[in-house]
Amino acid sequence: MNTITLAHGAGGKASRELTEKIILPAFSNPMLNELHDGAKLQVGGNIAFSTDSFVIEPLFFRGGDIGKLAVCGTVNDLSMTGAKPRFLSAAMIVEEGFPMADLEKIAQSMKKAAAEAGVFIVTGDTKVVERGKGDGIYINTAGIGEIIHNVDISPKNVTPGMKIILSGYIGDHAATILGARHGIDIGENLKSDCAPLNSLTEEMLKIAPDIALLRDPTRGGVAAVLNEIAADAQVGILIDEEKIPVREEVRAVCELLGFDVLQLANEGKLLAFVPADKAEIVLEGMKQNPYGKNAAIIGETRENPAGVVGLCTSIGAIRAVEMPQAEIVPRIC
Amino acid sequence: MNTITLAHGAGGKASRELTEKIILPAFSNPMLNELHDGAKLQVGGNIAFSTDSFVIEPLFFRGGDIGKLAVCGTVNDLSMTGAKPRFLSAAMIVEEGFPMADLEKIAQSMKKAAAEAGVFIVTGDTKVVERGKGDGIYINTAGIGEIIHNVDISPKNVTPGMKIILSGYIGDHAATILGARHGIDIGENLKSDCAPLNSLTEEMLKIAPDIALLRDPTRGGVAAVLNEIAADAQVGILIDEEKIPVREEVRAVCELLGFDVLQLANEGKLLAFVPADKAEIVLEGMKQNPYGKNAAIIGETRENPAGVVGLCTSIGAIRAVEMPQAEIVPRIC
Repeated sequence: MNTITLAHGAGGKASRELTEKIILPAFSNPMLNELHDGAKLQVGGNIAFSTDSFVIEPLFFRGGDIGKLAVCGTVNDLSMTGAKPRFLSAAMIVEEGFPMADLEKIAQSMKKAAAEAGVFIVTGDTKVVERGKGDGIYINTAGIGEIIHNVDISPKNVTPGMKIILSGYIGDHAATILGARHGIDIGENLKSDCAPLNSLTEEMLKIAPDIALLRDPTRGGVAAVLNEIAADAQVGILIDEEKIPVREEVRAVCELLGFDVLQLANEGKLLAFVPADKAEIVLEGMKQNPYGKNAAIIGETRENPAGVVGLCTSIGAIRAVEMPQAEIVPRIC
Repeated sequence: MNTITLAHGAGGKASRELTEKIILPAFSNPMLNELHDGAKLQVGGNIAFSTDSFVIEPLFFRGGDIGKLAVCGTVNDLSMTGAKPRFLSAAMIVEEGFPMADLEKIAQSMKKAAAEAGVFIVTGDTKVVERGKGDGIYINTAGIGEIIHNVDISPKNVTPGMKIILSGYIGDHAATILGARHGIDIGENLKSDCAPLNSLTEEMLKIAPDIALLRDPTRGGVAAVLNEIAADAQVGILIDEEKIPVREEVRAVCELLGFDVLQLANEGKLLAFVPADKAEIVLEGMKQNPYGKNAAIIGETRENPAGVVGLCTSIGAIRAVEMPQAEIVPRIC
C-alpha cells in the first residue's frame, strides 16, 4: 500500500490504519492519543484562535515543505495577536494516488516544526478526494494560543509617530517558489524563510508590552500589510527603500519576472509598529534572535496623508505603495 | 465579477473585497470584525478543540449543503466531547471559476446553522486553486467548546452492562447523497439529517452527567463507531436489529446499491453509552428534543467477547458487525 486510496478517507479500517501508522507516530501526545472527536485541553482565560489552509505548489521546496509551512503559518498568526501558541489542529485533504512516503515526510516535517515552536498537534482529520479533484495535498491548521498578560495588539492602537520595524530580508519565500516553478537559477543559498516566529514575538513583547501591532507579511507582502494598517488605523505610513533588507538573488528574480519585492509573500518575517521611544531597544532585542538578526527600522507612521503608504526611494523621490490589485503569485502558501 | 478568480486568493485588493462583500455580512460579530490574524476570545479553563474538512459532493443536497454540514459537523464533534460549542473558524479552498452566488449561498447557510447552534464564526481564511485542482469548494471548520462541568466523556469510562442509545433514524444522509449521485428516486420526504446536536447533548448531560460516551456515527456509520469503542474500551457490544430505526426509503437505497445501513454515514445522529439505571430517563429527555424524538435503546455492552460487535437479527440469529473495510461512499462529508 504505497499510495493513498479513497478507502483511506472513508472512516473504516483503512482510515484507522493510516492514523495509526503515519499520524500518531508523528504527532503522538496524550491529548491526541485519545483519538476522540475532539481534544480536551486546559488554557488560560484569554485566548487567540486562528486558521489557515495551505495549498502551496510545489509541495516540497528549498527551506521547507507544505507541512512546515502549515505549522509555522498558524503559529505565526497566533504570535501576531500577542499570544503564546499552544495547540494546533491538522486537517489534510489528500488526492487519491498521493505517495504514502510523501505523506510521511510531510507529517515528520510538521512534527519537527511543532517541536521547535513548542506547540502540540492535538486533533486532526483526513479526507481523500478522487484523482484530479485536488493537487497532491492541501493542509489546514487551526491554532489556539494564550494571549500574553498586559499585551493588546490591535490596529486601533497604531497612532502617528510610531516606528515600523521589519524583522529581516523580504521576498525569500516567494522568490524561492517562483524560482522552482519557472526553473530560474536562484543561486546556491536562497531558500524560503519559512519559520516559527513565536520566540521572536515573545522576546519583543517582554521588552515592550506596549507594541501596538504585529503582522506577518504573507500573501500580498509588505505592501498589502502596510496598506491594510494605514486604512484601518487611518494613519499615513512612510517607509525608506534603502532600509528594507532585500537579497541580491531576490532582486534578480523580481527584475526577471517583473515583480515588486514589496508585494512578495514571506513566511518567516514580521512587521511591528512600536512606540518611538521603545524602537531601539526592541530592535536590539530582535537582533539576538535567529529570526530577527537582520531586523531594521524601515519607516514610521504619520498624521497625513491618512490611509496612504509612501516609499521614499533611493533617489529621494516619494512614490505611493499600492495595495496589490491582481494575482501576484498564485498558491504561494 | 460573477465567479471566483485566482486574484481572490492572492491577499490583495480582490481578497479584501471578497471578505468585505461575502464573508463579513454573513458572519459579522465583534470578534471576527477585527479582521486580525486571529480572533481574541474568552473561554473557561477546560476546553475541547476539534477540526474537520468537508469535501462533500454534490455541494447542495436535500436537507442541506456543504456550508450547513461544515458548521454542524464541528459543532457535533465538540458536543460529543461533552462540551458546549462556542467558537468556529471557517477556511475555504475555492476552485477558480466557482460561482460567486453559490459562495454567498453557502456562507448564508453557515450563518443560519451557526445561529441555530449558538456559535460564532470568529476567524477564517480563503484560498483559491486553479481550475481542475479542486472541486468547487472545500471547507474546513475548527471549533472550540467549553467542557461542561463534571462531565467526563471517554471510551475508558465504557464498562460492561451499559445501555446504548441511538438518537433516531440512521442512513438518511448517505442515502440522500447516494440518491442524488445515482439519480435514484428516493421519494418525496427523504433528506439529509444534517443538524447541530448540541442542544440534545446538553439536555442529556443535564439529566445524566455520568454518560460514559457520546459519538456521532458519520463516516463509517454505526458499524465503525461501535467497533472502535468495543476495541478501545475492550467490551463486547450486542445490538438488536429490530430496535434500530431505519426508514423504508433508506432500506430501499441500501438494497438497490448493496450497502449495509449500519455502515452509512449520518450527520445528525448520535450514539450514547449510558449507565443502565439512567437509560430510561435519558431516553425520555431525548424524545423532548426535535433531534432525539425517535431515539431508542438499541443494545448494551457486555463483558465478552471483548472487542467484538454482534447484531441480533430479526430472526433471532447473531451476526458479527464488521468494521467497514474499503470505501463505502466517497466524499460523503
